[in-house]
Amino acid sequence: MLAAQNEAIEAGDFVWRTDREDVHMNIEAALTDMIGEPAKKLHTARSRNDQVVTDLRLWCRDAIDSILFHIKKLQVVLVYLAMRNEGLIVPGYTHLQRAQPVLLQHLLLSYVEQLERDAGRFIDCENRLNFCPLGACALAGTGLPIDRFMTSDALGFTAPLRNSIDAVSDRDFVLEFLSASSIAAIHLSRLGEEWVLWASEEFGFLVPSDSVSTGSSIMPQKKNPDPMELVRGKSARVVGDLITVLVLCKGLPQAYNRDLQEDKEPLFDSVKTIMGMLEVTAEFAQNITFNHERIQRALPLGIWMQQPSPITLLRRTSHDIVGRCVAFCLSKDCQLSDLSLDELMAIDPVFEKDVYEFVGVNNSVSKFCSYGSTGSACVSEQLSYWVSKLGISTDASE
Amino acid sequence: MLAAQNEAIEAGDFVWRTDREDVHMNIEAALTDMIGEPAKKLHTARSRNDQVVTDLRLWCRDAIDSILFHIKKLQVVLVYLAMRNEGLIVPGYTHLQRAQPVLLQHLLLSYVEQLERDAGRFIDCENRLNFCPLGACALAGTGLPIDRFMTSDALGFTAPLRNSIDAVSDRDFVLEFLSASSIAAIHLSRLGEEWVLWASEEFGFLVPSDSVSTGSSIMPQKKNPDPMELVRGKSARVVGDLITVLVLCKGLPQAYNRDLQEDKEPLFDSVKTIMGMLEVTAEFAQNITFNHERIQRALPLGIWMQQPSPITLLRRTSHDIVGRCVAFCLSKDCQLSDLSLDELMAIDPVFEKDVYEFVGVNNSVSKFCSYGSTGSACVSEQLSYWVSKLGISTDASE
Amino acid sequence: MLAAQNEAIEAGDFVWRTDREDVHMNIEAALTDMIGEPAKKLHTARSRNDQVVTDLRLWCRDAIDSILFHIKKLQVVLVYLAMRNEGLIVPGYTHLQRAQPVLLQHLLLSYVEQLERDAGRFIDCENRLNFCPLGACALAGTGLPIDRFMTSDALGFTAPLRNSIDAVSDRDFVLEFLSASSIAAIHLSRLGEEWVLWASEEFGFLVPSDSVSTGSSIMPQKKNPDPMELVRGKSARVVGDLITVLVLCKGLPQAYNRDLQEDKEPLFDSVKTIMGMLEVTAEFAQNITFNHERIQRALPLGIWMQQPSPITLLRRTSHDIVGRCVAFCLSKDCQLSDLSLDELMAIDPVFEKDVYEFVGVNNSVSKFCSYGSTGSACVSEQLSYWVSKLGISTDASE
Amino acid sequence: MLAAQNEAIEAGDFVWRTDREDVHMNIEAALTDMIGEPAKKLHTARSRNDQVVTDLRLWCRDAIDSILFHIKKLQVVLVYLAMRNEGLIVPGYTHLQRAQPVLLQHLLLSYVEQLERDAGRFIDCENRLNFCPLGACALAGTGLPIDRFMTSDALGFTAPLRNSIDAVSDRDFVLEFLSASSIAAIHLSRLGEEWVLWASEEFGFLVPSDSVSTGSSIMPQKKNPDPMELVRGKSARVVGDLITVLVLCKGLPQAYNRDLQEDKEPLFDSVKTIMGMLEVTAEFAQNITFNHERIQRALPLGIWMQQPSPITLLRRTSHDIVGRCVAFCLSKDCQLSDLSLDELMAIDPVFEKDVYEFVGVNNSVSKFCSYGSTGSACVSEQLSYWVSKLGISTDASE
Repeated sequence: MLAAQNEAIEAGDFVWRTDREDVHMNIEAALTDMIGEPAKKLHTARSRNDQVVTDLRLWCRDAIDSILFHIKKLQVVLVYLAMRNEGLIVPGYTHLQRAQPVLLQHLLLSYVEQLERDAGRFIDCENRLNFCPLGACALAGTGLPIDRFMTSDALGFTAPLRNSIDAVSDRDFVLEFLSASSIAAIHLSRLGEEWVLWASEEFGFLVPSDSVSTGSSIMPQKKNPDPMELVRGKSARVVGDLITVLVLCKGLPQAYNRDLQEDKEPLFDSVKTIMGMLEVTAEFAQNITFNHERIQRALPLGIWMQQPSPITLLRRTSHDIVGRCVAFCLSKDCQLSDLSLDELMAIDPVFEKDVYEFVGVNNSVSKFCSYGSTGSACVSEQLSYWVSKLGISTDASE
Repeated sequence: MLAAQNEAIEAGDFVWRTDREDVHMNIEAALTDMIGEPAKKLHTARSRNDQVVTDLRLWCRDAIDSILFHIKKLQVVLVYLAMRNEGLIVPGYTHLQRAQPVLLQHLLLSYVEQLERDAGRFIDCENRLNFCPLGACALAGTGLPIDRFMTSDALGFTAPLRNSIDAVSDRDFVLEFLSASSIAAIHLSRLGEEWVLWASEEFGFLVPSDSVSTGSSIMPQKKNPDPMELVRGKSARVVGDLITVLVLCKGLPQAYNRDLQEDKEPLFDSVKTIMGMLEVTAEFAQNITFNHERIQRALPLGIWMQQPSPITLLRRTSHDIVGRCVAFCLSKDCQLSDLSLDELMAIDPVFEKDVYEFVGVNNSVSKFCSYGSTGSACVSEQLSYWVSKLGISTDASE
Repeated sequence: MLAAQNEAIEAGDFVWRTDREDVHMNIEAALTDMIGEPAKKLHTARSRNDQVVTDLRLWCRDAIDSILFHIKKLQVVLVYLAMRNEGLIVPGYTHLQRAQPVLLQHLLLSYVEQLERDAGRFIDCENRLNFCPLGACALAGTGLPIDRFMTSDALGFTAPLRNSIDAVSDRDFVLEFLSASSIAAIHLSRLGEEWVLWASEEFGFLVPSDSVSTGSSIMPQKKNPDPMELVRGKSARVVGDLITVLVLCKGLPQAYNRDLQEDKEPLFDSVKTIMGMLEVTAEFAQNITFNHERIQRALPLGIWMQQPSPITLLRRTSHDIVGRCVAFCLSKDCQLSDLSLDELMAIDPVFEKDVYEFVGVNNSVSKFCSYGSTGSACVSEQLSYWVSKLGISTDASE
Repeated sequence: MLAAQNEAIEAGDFVWRTDREDVHMNIEAALTDMIGEPAKKLHTARSRNDQVVTDLRLWCRDAIDSILFHIKKLQVVLVYLAMRNEGLIVPGYTHLQRAQPVLLQHLLLSYVEQLERDAGRFIDCENRLNFCPLGACALAGTGLPIDRFMTSDALGFTAPLRNSIDAVSDRDFVLEFLSASSIAAIHLSRLGEEWVLWASEEFGFLVPSDSVSTGSSIMPQKKNPDPMELVRGKSARVVGDLITVLVLCKGLPQAYNRDLQEDKEPLFDSVKTIMGMLEVTAEFAQNITFNHERIQRALPLGIWMQQPSPITLLRRTSHDIVGRCVAFCLSKDCQLSDLSLDELMAIDPVFEKDVYEFVGVNNSVSKFCSYGSTGSACVSEQLSYWVSKLGISTDASE
């Protein structure tokens, strides 16, 4: 019979009566309807104060599990996207100026790394909040011989909270959750910005499919990357929610104050928002292609020689040689690899024939060899790490 | 010679020259002064981008260690304060209305619990940030055969960061640090509020010594609890610093952007502020006494019977009996324990002689027995837990 | 026929069809149903970008009018409350320590002043936002010969906005509105805090009626001031909403970006919240009484002599005399006015018979005479100012 | 003699002694050194509480005057920049996708409009804060027969504040100032973002001179727009400062609380920051040139026909004709104006010879005629408005 009620609740068929005040009284009343007077013992050694915060911790725990699922899903999508674009070199930017060529895989994995730390913060939050307030009652505990360890176990908590006043007063787990959410949201806002830029005609690196962009019949070439604009924008809500609860808790004495009732809406809003942001980003990432031709044209001319090239080993003193090479290339609108050895030697006698092993974007990228760098071997190693860690099947792409 | 320079830096005797641009160039130049040309290799496979963020992570790590030290110190002070006030019962509040009597020790330990979670957040943050960016260079890594694991080890990092773009782009460790600081600051603002209230003439529970209060020659009884007002107020700075860095990072594409330079001042300000708040609170806590007489007068009249008393076992149906008792006491301006059995029986025949075992604040508090409750045995157990965990000597108080 | 549709919309009888996309297409379609093809001209020289921001400005204008109504209503309620409590002297606090006695009227009017500045900010905001974007179209204006002054007039705007790009890009009016709301919310949080304190048993200055407090059958003397706790807490939402839109707008280039869609929910939430806070505070203020006896007991002993008393004219040198008087009174648990002239002269020979004109709380308050001070005549003048400014009838209290 | 001291203070020659506590005691002591005992009357009917807040209002007033000066200066610089680039057409964006061609002048004036509203907010703030707290003393006023109107006049205030408790308790003027600053900062962050984008190689619209950009000897074409990145980033500080003071004031009861001491640093920091942002932006704007050739290439192909062209008058039904034209142009990589009438008629017979009056970017922009639109005549009118309003000499550019 109880199982039936549980199913009814899960299925949305349970009739919640507003005249029964709140969720706790509805459950108690439903139980009373089923088994009569003994049901009233449900309320023994309970108070709204500890019941509400117990519910909130349970709800947060579930929310974190869902968010972790969506973070991992987005990581998988990004890794697949990397796998599908092996060997594609894109400009790496500093100050939004082209700085050095990097593998697109390397760039995509940088977001995977950030998401991994986001997941870590949510897991730490979950571990820290997974303690049971039940039995703290109004604030002081109870004189009834209840077993708080039993209820804690039954609800899947690590242990009961050690201090009943702390149990009903504090909402630091909500703050920690909202902090983790805000940091993740800011990460996603950065990816949002990057992809909005890349989808512009000026960059032209990324083409969203029609399913994830809006257009204009009068401007058929226009592909508004609305989903990523919204991801960028919605980060603001999560930060706003965090501030709400920080301001809410500031300066409240122990123990319960009615103000704390206001913790729920920002929490619920943030969970809905961050989950939506993760899902939309994954959806968008699955529906974009990269415009190789446009990207090729954007590869930086200036950075074509990596350490340890013959000249850059003496980097500090050779900057002006490099500068003169670049100026010469710009004047001829060509790449360094297009210059003849004579032209190079005219610029500076330091050049010898082996210079061609070092010039050109592909040569340049392949020379990177430090751990974590954009060199093909390094990135390949990192990609394998993530494929294995995320349990991705490499038989066929997604 | 190097050791001498190290000592000079520690001692503040090293001459920092502004014409040498920044800290890195100063070190390189000093080394050049000492050993000549080879010193320039210091810069090999380095860029400001990875050097700056490496410094920042090292600095955060040290800051967290200092903060952890101060958190523990405050916990110790609060536990000593609890030990010095064994048996003192104070009102516990909900809605700032007296709700149930609790042991002061129990209330003080609720703050110790909150500080412990604060410490946990800082430790998690430290573990997550303790990875080494050095060798990420500008953003792409390097082609020079450097050993990033060696430098990571030498600097006490867990490992080098796996992705060079991530290494120079992200500041989530600053955000996580500021989040942990904000939550701790909000906790302290709550203690600040509580003690400001308690120091008011209306409460009169707490008397700060002259060393931690300001007075007025014209009003000798006035003891302004300035330190705790400032603790409450300074929480605002930390929240403001967090927002600054959240807004700063919002919508920045990878990798390094000059905006990120603005991460330092809010970080430094927060560290200084949170350390000050912890120190000032500890100092204040060591210089207060509790006014037993005023506290005694404030103990709630209404809450003198705890479950499982004969009547409160049937709590739901006996509320009106209790209400009538309280009304009668209020009209006579006495405590329930002052009423004769005849008077009680006149209120309701349910009362029997054993009622006196349940009435009165001391009886009431001693009856609490659930784990984590305010019952003397429970609190004593918790106090022992903290004395042991914090390594407090119980031979003599502080 | 149009009038009928208008009425239908006002009455909530208009059928909004989701298949018609949004409010603009619903109106156009309804008009088409009525008058056929010419209705489509509605859309001429319009774009969602200018339509949406026009609607938002109209909506803000209405919201501000409602808020101004509620601010004035709360001011009126506070002035009535002041009128009903003529002559009641309460402690004035600094550092939450009793500092000087003030008329309750004076304290209540300090909140009326703050609300008046809040109203001023909303009025400035309304004046600044009341310009019409319509005709800015997508961003560049239109080549059709429309008359933007005519539509601006018809909609009650001051004038059309001068620049079409500015018209569709900026949301500074939302930010200004949310700033004004946040400042007002912070003001109300302070009143909330004050009344929560005053309703505590420790202060006992204020008794809320049952209609605006929750109690406990087991603790009949408990009167939780929930409405003012919620007013205090809900201030946090408004601040959170402000932050949301600040973060949202940060770093967006001109002109329209999809992110801006996210401006609506925080705006709507703030309007609902601030109106609720104003209403609840007014309701609470109409349902409280002041406990004269408790207030009387709390009046500061220390501050019984105001300038220009014979001794305080020489204030700097006489502090220690005053201090000795207070110490003597405290030791005898009496007021200064209870001391005999002999006792006073034993403390210091400076005292003469006229000292009694200066001691005692009533004498003290009545001596204040500087403009804006708490002296009865001054406060009376201010009260008249507000009665007249707010158009309050003084025939009978509310 | 007094004048001499004033000059010494202005010149920075006045010796501030820390043993004299604060600025007020330093002034009093210096006066005492000059004229002896009567100097002590300076302190008559004064308290730190009203003195400090009077100073703060005076300081804010000066700060606003400086900010208004810098806002106007930036407006002038932007108008000059517009005047120097007459006729230059740039893409107008929505969703960062090219949407419609606009005059650069029109775009620059959109920022001038936003700055004008920013100035309006600062002026409103100044008018509202320019009331004098002096004489409110600690909180209740004074019994000494002081003339608050006289001191208010002498200090250039509009009038004394009407309520002494309000005078020492409230900091809403700081909040209003920080709100106005935050909104202005967000505006500047948007201009910062736009110019960082425009300075990228992908856009290539804007070239900063070497004096306002940093480069790299190894990458001579790189021009990092650091100043605008910092402008964008520093907006975060101002928002953080606003939050600090909002959190600070939340939940403080009347009247003075020590917390309020923390209002100064965020205020000072914001003034310094916003002034720096305005100056840096003006400096940058004076040192950029626009790359006409790159801009020309970016002009949108799709939007070449403006209402009221023969086909777009029937816009709703002609979208597919337009779409087919654009598709055809894209396939031939040409502009619509390059198509022959035959080609056009092959697309749709609706085209007639007059189509050439409507195609092409210049024709397109010149057709805009609605008030506030980007049409040359409209923009010219707006430019004249600003030249006149800002008192700009048109004899020669800056």
